[in-house]
Parts: sequence; structure tokens; C-alpha cells
Amino acid sequence: MATPSTSRPLAAIILAAGQGTRMKSDRHKVLHPIAGRPMLLHLIDSIGQAGAERSVVVVGAGRGQIDAAVAPLGIATALQAEQLGTAHATLQARDALADFEGIVIVCFGDTPFLRAETITAMAARLEAEDAPRIVMLGFRPDDAKAYGRIIADADGSIRKMVEFKDASEDERAVDLCNSGVTAIRAADLWPLLDRVGNDNAAGEYYLPDIVMLALADGGRAVVVETRADEVIGINSRAELAYAESRWQAARREAVMAAGVSLIAPDTVWFAHDTEIGRDVTIEPNVWFGPGVKIADRATIHAFSHIEGAVIGEGAEVGPYARLRPGAVLGEKSKVGNFVEVKKAVLGRGAKANHLTYLGDAEIGAGANIGAGTITCNYDGYFKYRTVIGEGAFIGSNSALVAPVSIGAGAIVGAGAVVTADVEADALALVRPEQRAKPGWAKRFRDAMMAKKAGKQL
Amino acid sequence: MATPSTSRPLAAIILAAGQGTRMKSDRHKVLHPIAGRPMLLHLIDSIGQAGAERSVVVVGAGRGQIDAAVAPLGIATALQAEQLGTAHATLQARDALADFEGIVIVCFGDTPFLRAETITAMAARLEAEDAPRIVMLGFRPDDAKAYGRIIADADGSIRKMVEFKDASEDERAVDLCNSGVTAIRAADLWPLLDRVGNDNAAGEYYLPDIVMLALADGGRAVVVETRADEVIGINSRAELAYAESRWQAARREAVMAAGVSLIAPDTVWFAHDTEIGRDVTIEPNVWFGPGVKIADRATIHAFSHIEGAVIGEGAEVGPYARLRPGAVLGEKSKVGNFVEVKKAVLGRGAKANHLTYLGDAEIGAGANIGAGTITCNYDGYFKYRTVIGEGAFIGSNSALVAPVSIGAGAIVGAGAVVTADVEADALALVRPEQRAKPGWAKRFRDAMMAKKAGKQL
Amino acid sequence: MATPSTSRPLAAIILAAGQGTRMKSDRHKVLHPIAGRPMLLHLIDSIGQAGAERSVVVVGAGRGQIDAAVAPLGIATALQAEQLGTAHATLQARDALADFEGIVIVCFGDTPFLRAETITAMAARLEAEDAPRIVMLGFRPDDAKAYGRIIADADGSIRKMVEFKDASEDERAVDLCNSGVTAIRAADLWPLLDRVGNDNAAGEYYLPDIVMLALADGGRAVVVETRADEVIGINSRAELAYAESRWQAARREAVMAAGVSLIAPDTVWFAHDTEIGRDVTIEPNVWFGPGVKIADRATIHAFSHIEGAVIGEGAEVGPYARLRPGAVLGEKSKVGNFVEVKKAVLGRGAKANHLTYLGDAEIGAGANIGAGTITCNYDGYFKYRTVIGEGAFIGSNSALVAPVSIGAGAIVGAGAVVTADVEADALALVRPEQRAKPGWAKRFRDAMMAKKAGKQL
Repeated sequence: MATPSTSRPLAAIILAAGQGTRMKSDRHKVLHPIAGRPMLLHLIDSIGQAGAERSVVVVGAGRGQIDAAVAPLGIATALQAEQLGTAHATLQARDALADFEGIVIVCFGDTPFLRAETITAMAARLEAEDAPRIVMLGFRPDDAKAYGRIIADADGSIRKMVEFKDASEDERAVDLCNSGVTAIRAADLWPLLDRVGNDNAAGEYYLPDIVMLALADGGRAVVVETRADEVIGINSRAELAYAESRWQAARREAVMAAGVSLIAPDTVWFAHDTEIGRDVTIEPNVWFGPGVKIADRATIHAFSHIEGAVIGEGAEVGPYARLRPGAVLGEKSKVGNFVEVKKAVLGRGAKANHLTYLGDAEIGAGANIGAGTITCNYDGYFKYRTVIGEGAFIGSNSALVAPVSIGAGAIVGAGAVVTADVEADALALVRPEQRAKPGWAKRFRDAMMAKKAGKQL
Repeated sequence: MATPSTSRPLAAIILAAGQGTRMKSDRHKVLHPIAGRPMLLHLIDSIGQAGAERSVVVVGAGRGQIDAAVAPLGIATALQAEQLGTAHATLQARDALADFEGIVIVCFGDTPFLRAETITAMAARLEAEDAPRIVMLGFRPDDAKAYGRIIADADGSIRKMVEFKDASEDERAVDLCNSGVTAIRAADLWPLLDRVGNDNAAGEYYLPDIVMLALADGGRAVVVETRADEVIGINSRAELAYAESRWQAARREAVMAAGVSLIAPDTVWFAHDTEIGRDVTIEPNVWFGPGVKIADRATIHAFSHIEGAVIGEGAEVGPYARLRPGAVLGEKSKVGNFVEVKKAVLGRGAKANHLTYLGDAEIGAGANIGAGTITCNYDGYFKYRTVIGEGAFIGSNSALVAPVSIGAGAIVGAGAVVTADVEADALALVRPEQRAKPGWAKRFRDAMMAKKAGKQL
Repeated sequence: MATPSTSRPLAAIILAAGQGTRMKSDRHKVLHPIAGRPMLLHLIDSIGQAGAERSVVVVGAGRGQIDAAVAPLGIATALQAEQLGTAHATLQARDALADFEGIVIVCFGDTPFLRAETITAMAARLEAEDAPRIVMLGFRPDDAKAYGRIIADADGSIRKMVEFKDASEDERAVDLCNSGVTAIRAADLWPLLDRVGNDNAAGEYYLPDIVMLALADGGRAVVVETRADEVIGINSRAELAYAESRWQAARREAVMAAGVSLIAPDTVWFAHDTEIGRDVTIEPNVWFGPGVKIADRATIHAFSHIEGAVIGEGAEVGPYARLRPGAVLGEKSKVGNFVEVKKAVLGRGAKANHLTYLGDAEIGAGANIGAGTITCNYDGYFKYRTVIGEGAFIGSNSALVAPVSIGAGAIVGAGAVVTADVEADALALVRPEQRAKPGWAKRFRDAMMAKKAGKQL
């Protein structure tokens, strides 16, 4: 997935200081997830693919949340204490990039689908022979609405940036819109920003004003175009859901093209990192959280909920299987209906077909776990492991009280509560005698019917 | 949700005498549900919001079904024994409204999306200075098809009502259609209805004919317009499904706008009365029946089926949780996969994470219900309660035979059948000795393999 | 569903020798399923309905897979060892049809929606007074793309067949496209095929060339038209998913028109043979595999997964019910949440409402199967039956170790492991004494807290 990058060092300033009030959320807007990953991290991933060596996220409210998300990636944040406009926000990254001398990409945390290829193309354009001082990213939406317009020549040379509300009728007829994404050399960026004023209706410092300043200096600014769906921002839950749907639709197409059968593509949700082999069949209504790998020829039946799991070749999952992180299913193993698997490894051909909970367990090849089996892995304070040997047979409705081990080839009788290890090839029984009280049920029934009749009087 | 109403008393006549044969159902057409509520009750709700003090439903076949649905609301029905047209149907409400002197709205049971605002606007229009005698509700559909047309002046004054089949080419070119919904003073309604004839191809008495009669008398009739999707009728299961989809789409938009994350909005179904707090996340494929309230910051995982439940702040539900009426989940409690909860209250932080049935139960704060636990609440005749104290720990695969109580802080060992109360801080065990038969499993296996081989000969 | 057929004998040649590389599958393209049935069998079904007495499938790679699928239907395959074009492929069927003297339909295994009515119309056209020698099937797609064109007179007489790449500007403007489906008398087919050459860019023998040869002989060839969606081929997983979606959409419409309520039609998937009665309600998200029959007034709740099952009148299924082949649910019976039923018959009014596995079982009328009940039907080698009598009551979390029978009216206490038969009206208990260790839980808790604190140091 590496993308050829420009030869100059690249850094990114990600503006994420907006309040995001339309989300009506305590969670910072750019941390709302798409495909199981915060939208900001989709963007950071693309920036990384484009070869950026440094990134700074400019944050207003909620800086702590952003820090928690990006610090593990070694990415810094800068605070914009007051919301004074995009030029002012960009300036807050100056300290963090004081010693940086390459190309800076300014982009937006709520526009997560910006592609590495586009960043690279912008940076490369800046290095082209005609040596523009600024490269702006433009797009042509179906409905240009109130976006700012870029007035440019056929060769991409920008003549004017104009806000919609200041635009003439002729300018509004232009369909080339300004995404705000900007590529510029660091040496140009900071001086230009210093010169941006706030003499406008909102009293804000606007980033696109640097274009007009550069042009006034006699410099060139050019536009690079991209698809509209790459730069449309996410400002509400409805727009978030729409972005999710676009991401999923693209991924479903890619997965089918690679040889996976989706009977009802619209009902399968992938995570950003789902990996699926060839000739895998996925029935309707399957949900993938992050961290799933599926080998060739596996079948995922309907209504399965899978995250953090590795599914072996030819394995069969569901319907109604829940695989949680640490589930590892061997080749041709089966996890059936109403079965939950967490931090458990099933060997080749092992089966747990019905109504079972396997947690913190190791199940040998060919073992058969009966319906209703529970690994009792938790005592309220600590977790313990269950080990089941190859070819063992666990009777239905058994409770295996961990730590415990069942030897290879052993059989556990139905309904057992197993608290001691069972040796290989042994039968373990934990079961009292069956007692019968003849006629008792009839007497009980008669008494209850009488009571019920009495209640109804 | 109260809507300002006209000062005059308001009554509604709801026509619901149609056979609904295209539904192919034993259930009366207007009782088929949308968002978990019969379509007739959606309409009655809007009528009530508009301030109507009385309603009469005119019914043909299936009157008993309608009575059962509306009697609890104090709404009367009137019988139209023969299907002689809408004017005749309206006349059947005369006795029930004999002493009513305000404004009458005539509307249709199979047009459930009529809004209170529209009813109010029609009634208010009747009271305007120009004092029309009749207000008709018009709409402009994308495809006017064979709807009757309203020929009106720019100010809304009606010049002619015309059935499609009687309309001239010019009249058919008019896109203002007649919904049939009518506002009129009671004092005008009955005399006009008495004068409607049935001299037409079908031999029926048509309600819109009162407009032509009023105009002939020198009176005014005017049209009020509304959106087409408010007045389109439901005559088949496909139209019912379409109406449901429109209702759901509107509700999903509203829910997201209020700060709820729907990862795949098209896969979440709300009921008419679902209430959801802020920063709630709902994964794909969740079904809400009536009577659900969800507090802020709760998470509903995929494949959950929820009705009649109250879900506390920060609680976590599913995947595959089934909450039935009377389920009350405390703050930060968890109900996990393959768990059913019915008439049961879970305290703050209580957990039932796997494969459990909790019915007629009270679970204390912080209690942990092990996988496979069943409250045995039913003896075939009566239901009994289970009470579990704060911080108790119920081992996996336990059966709690109600009535029974487990004290605070008590522990029940795995696989127990608890028939007697357990005191606070005690350990209860219901478990026989574990026995082992070394080598038995191997001998069994050998015997079975031999038998299988024998069968295959 | 019988379709009137021509009086002459009819045979079909189904071309299925294409590699299907875009499917990226080890499974032969024409065996990928739509509505739970290989697409080839949809086509063979239509051919049979049209009255064809013989069919030959021409296969290249993967002949074994095709043989396995069609041999049970008495249908032969012929091998096309090399891929030399459609005329060459058709010729491979000559031996198999050497003694056949009627009308031959040549069609395509990856075009499964060809209707019996269309085949019949083509055969009938061949017998019409003007006695054409060849009938081609044409269609007019929204986008004619690179399809071959049929240049024909208004009466359907073909003047020219032209491949897109050889077509003039005027010919490309024609929107009548060639589906390739051909009807021709056997006596004409083989001699014409022998004369087809391969003097073209690809060096292939093209079937439509027989039309030009027949015209050159002074014969007539005519076109019959059909809807585009009947003849569009399936070449990729995405096209397969699209074909599935079209099939499902049509079936949903038909099911609703017949009096079934689908609350969210787009989320219900039928199989090719699903049969559903009147006034059945199906909630969102239900999946039907093959072999399901549902009687009137049954309700299928959300998230149910049903195949090979018979569901009785007024029965209630789900949510989260999994019915597998051999499940037979009596009138007014109930199978509830997280319940799996396989090869099991439930009598009238029997109930299994929660967390249960019923396999190889017979449940009497009115019996009540408690939550968490498991029929232990498998010992690792053989399957055994469980028989439960009328009105019996099985306590929760019971394991019934088959072969075993529970008599009518008997009660099994909760948590029992039943290994011996229970007689009618008796109570069976398999349960040890309940023991209590006062204060033990508190001491355990204190010890664990200390241990946990220790670990955290």
C-alpha cells in the first residue's frame, strides 16, 4: 500500500478544533468511528502512507481525548484556545514544526477519506517546474451549495479564491469548490499566515486568504482536483452514517472482486482491517469488528458477530456465533449457534456446535464440545484456563471449572461440574442417582389446577 | 407535542369501512401495524394532538376488531352495513355526533400519516375571514395518476371537484389532487350529505359531491395543500411495508440529529414510542418493540431485540440480547449475548453476560450472573420470583428454582440447582462427587468404532 | 406452473464451458447459488417447465462438479475440451442428441433467469406459418454497451447479426441486442454448425454465424424479444449478488401480494422453494434456507434462521430461533429465543421458549420444555432419539440423555441429567442435597481482594 512520495520531507497539520456541536456528543467529533476506527485515524493512516514524517493535530475542546488517541502513534497535539479561524488554527502548529523545513499539508480531521495518492499528488505538484507557492485541493460536487469557489485557468492556475457569500453570480456558476486542503512549503506558510487578517463579517482568520496574499506577491497558486466524495466533511451523525455506508459499499465491492461470496452485500459490515480469503461465503447479516482474519473456503453463516478472531481454512462459523478477541479457529473446525468464544483456540476439526461459552481455553483437534457446555473461567477476581485434549468429548450441559484440564480422548458425562483434572481416555461422571416419584406429577397437577381455579373464583 | 388548535370544538369521522381485500388478511386493514402500532391509532393520535374532543370510526366488516382497538380510548364506532360510498359512510356517524356543533374533520383510517398540524390548519382555514363552508385537503403527487382533481384559483378557492374518469384533458393536466380529507361545520355537513345523490356509474354516494352542492348554493370551498406523502393511502402489504420504511427513515434521521450513533441506520427499527438518550450507540440490526427507554451513553450491540425495557445510563446490551417487557437495566449494568431478560430488574453494574434467562427476578447491584444461569420461574401453573442480593456471584449453569433468594455477597457454585434460600456471604453448593473411570473412554471408543465398522459392512 | 408448450419435442443445449475466472472460485460458475439453488438448476427448472424432454450441458473445466449436480436429474453433460467458441461448444452436444429430431434451444448456464414462457414462445415462433429456420432471443437493455446487435425489420425478420466491434455507427445505434439464446430444428442445427468458420480476430466459431448462413441459403431468421433482466449474464460475485437481490425483490413482492406481512422486506431472504401461508407475519432479518413450509397465521420473529422446516398454523418462532432440517412445529407451538431444533417434531401447543437444543426428538402436544434443556442425542458415534409425552414438563437446565423417553404428564426437576426412562405422571429428580458454608463467600472475597492487591504492588 506504499505510495510513491515526493522527495522533500512532508509534515501534516490536521485541524480538529471545531466544536462539532451538531454531533451532540461528549466524544470529540473526529474520534467518532468509521469501520471500527476513529475517523481521525483513517486520515492519519493516509498521511502516513503518503510518507509524512510528522503530524500535528490542532485541537480546541477535548484535547485530552485526542491526545489519548494519537499519543500512541507518536503524534503531537497543539491547542487552539480560542476559535479564531482556520489560519489561526494552523498557526498553533508553528511551535511543534519550528524546525521543519519541508512541505506542509494542512487538512481536516473531519474529512477522513483524503487519500495518500492525493496528498502525494499535491506535494509533487508543488515541486513541479512552474514552482507554485501553494497547491489547493479542489473538487466538483453534484451540488456546489455554499462552498467557497476556486476561480482558476484551464491549466489550474488560481486567479481567485472566493467565499460563497462574497461571490458574484458568475463566480457562483463555477463548480470548482475549495476543500480547504492546502500544500505549501513551511518556509512560505508561516510568514503568509502572519499576514492574514480578520477583516470580515465573522472576524475570523481564514486559511485560504494565504492564496490571495501569495498571488498579490506575484507568486503562483494552483489547484489539484479530486473526487468530491474524498473531501466531503462529517459534521453530524447522519453524515457519519453516510460516510460509513460509503466506506462499507466500497469494501464490499473489493471483497467480492477478490472471490468472496456475499449473498446480501448490504448486510455485511467490515472493519477497517478485516482480511478474507478466497471462496469464503458470508451469509446475510454478519458484523465484523476489528482484527479479523479468515482463511480460504471458510463459511460464515448469518447473524454472526466477529471481532479479533482468526478463522482457519474451511472452518464453519454460525449462525449466531460470537467470536471475541483471541478466538482462534483451526482448519475445518466448527463454532455453531449461540456459541461464544473468547481467548480460546480450537484445534483442527474441533466442534462446539450449540449454546456454549468457551473462554480462556485450549481445545484439542477433533474434540467435541457438547451443547450447553460452559468454561467457568472467572471467580469474580481472576481468570483461569481450561485445557481440553485432542479427541475429548464433553457431554452436554457441563461446567468446566477452571483451572482444569481434560485429557486427550477423555469423556465427560452430560451435566457434569468438573472441578478436578480428568486423565486421558478416562470417563468423568459428576452425577447423582436418578430418583422417581410415581404419580407425583399427577397429584401436583391436580393441586395446582385446584389452586388456579380457586384464584379465579 | 401539543399543537395549537382552533377555538371551536373539533370532532373527527374516520372512514374505515373499506374491505381491504388487497391485504388478503383476516385482520382489518386499518389495524395492520406501523412501528408496532395499528395504523388507525397513529391517525387517532394525530387527531387527539389536534385537539379533537370526539372521534367516530365508521366500520363495515370487522367492527368487533375495531371496537376492541379503540374502545379503550373511549372512541365509538358506527356501522356502515352496506358499502354505498364515502358520503353514505360519513352519514353513519350522524347519530354519534347528533349533539356536536363544532367542526368535523372527515379522514381515512388507511391514511395514517395525516398530521395534527394539517388538521389544525384545515380547521383554522374554515374560521378565516372569508368563511368558507368547506375546506378540502389537496396534494401534488409526483405522478397524479387517476386521483380526483381539484380545480382551484390561485387563492385556493375551489371551482370544481372532478373525478379522474370524468375529467377533461385540461383538467387532467392539473396536478392538484383530492385527498378526500374534509373539514366542515357540523351544521353544514349533515344537510349537504342528505342532498348527495348516487347518479353515477358506480351508483355510490361520493363525499366530495358536497363541495359542488355548496358551490351551487353560492358558498365558498377552499383547498389547503399538504405534502403528498402525508395522504397516500395503504391498500396492500407492499404499501404497508413502504409506509413502515418511510416512518422508520424519518425516525432514524430524528434520532441521529438528537445525538445517537446509528452505524447502519437502515437496519435499526424503532417503535412509535422508543425514547433514546444522547451519545447512545446502536450497532447494526437492532429491533425495538414498543415501550423502550434508553438513557444516555448506553450501547446497544448488534442483533438485539428489545421491547418494554428501560435501559440505564452507560448500560451495555447485546449482541444478541433479548429484553422483554419489564426488563429494567441499572446504570452501567450489562446484559450480554444470548441472554433473555423478562420482568427483571438489574441493579447498578450487575452483569449477566452469557446464555442466561432472567425472568421475574431482582438482581442486586454489582451481582455477577454466570453463563448458563436460569431462573426457574414457572412450574407450569404459576410464576415465582427470584431475588439475588448485591454483589452475589452465581456460578455457571446454575438453576435457581423460584421462589428463592440468594443473599448479598453469597456465592453459588457452578452447576447448582438452588431450591432453598442462600444466606448472605454464604457459599451454596449443590454438587455430587466427581468420579473417574480410567480407560473407560478408550474402551467405549473401541467398541463404538467396531460397531460402526460392523454397520458399514 | 405448467406452461403451454409447442407440439414438437423440445431439447435444450446449455452452454457452460466458460472459465468463469472473474468469480475467482474453485466452484464452477454456474453452480454458484441464487436463493439457495445453483444458478444452473434455476435454468434447468425453466427448461423443464417449458416441456423439454432432454437437456445436455456442455462443460469445459469442472465437468465433475456439473455432473454431480445434474446427474440426479437425469441430465447428461458433454465435454468441450478446448474453448473454441459457442458454435463449437454447441456441436459437442451432437452425439448426445444424435437421435433427437425436434426443436433445440441453445441457452447459457450463466443466464439463469430465462423463463419457460420465453422458451415456449421461441419454439412456437419456429412453428409459425412463415416457418423461420432460426429464432433468436433479443433484448433492449438500458445501456446496450458492447453487446452484439440484431438488425431486423419491424416484423422481426433478421437482416443481419453483427458483433459490436464490427458494427457501423448506424448499427451501433440499434438498441436490439443479441442474447445468444437460439431456437432451431435439430435437422437444421447440425449442418449449419458444420459450416461455421473461425475466420475472425479471436479465431473462434461463433454460434450466431448460423443466422448469416441460413439467410445466405435464402431462409428466414426472426427475433423474439424479452425483458433485459431475463438474459443478463452472471460473471462475477458482484453480479451474482445483484442477481440474488433481484430474485429476492421479486419474491418479496409476490409473498406480500399473497397476504404475508413483511415489516422490512429488504431484510428477509427466501429460498427458491419457500412456501408461506396467509396472514403470516415475518419480522425483520429472517433467513430461509431450502425446504420451508409455513402455515397460515404463524409468526416468525426477528433474527430467525430456518431451513428444511414445517411450521404449523398459528405457531410462533423466534426471535433467534434456528430451525434445521426435519424440524416440524405443530399448530400453535412455540420455539423461542436461542433455541435450535433439528429432526424434531413438536406437537400442538408444545413450547420450547429459551436456550434449548432439541435434536432427534418427538415432543408431545402441550409439553413444556424448560429453559436450557438439551437433548443429548450424540455419543460421538451414533445419534439417538428422545421421546417426550403429551403435557410433560421438563425442568430448566435438564440434559436428556438419549435414547430416553419421558412419559405423558411427567415432570423432570430442574437441572436433571435423565438417563433412564420416566414413566407417565411421575416426577424424576436427579439432584444432590444443597449444602451451605456460612461466611465462606466473605472469607473467599477477602482472600481474593488481598491477592489482587498483592498482584498490583
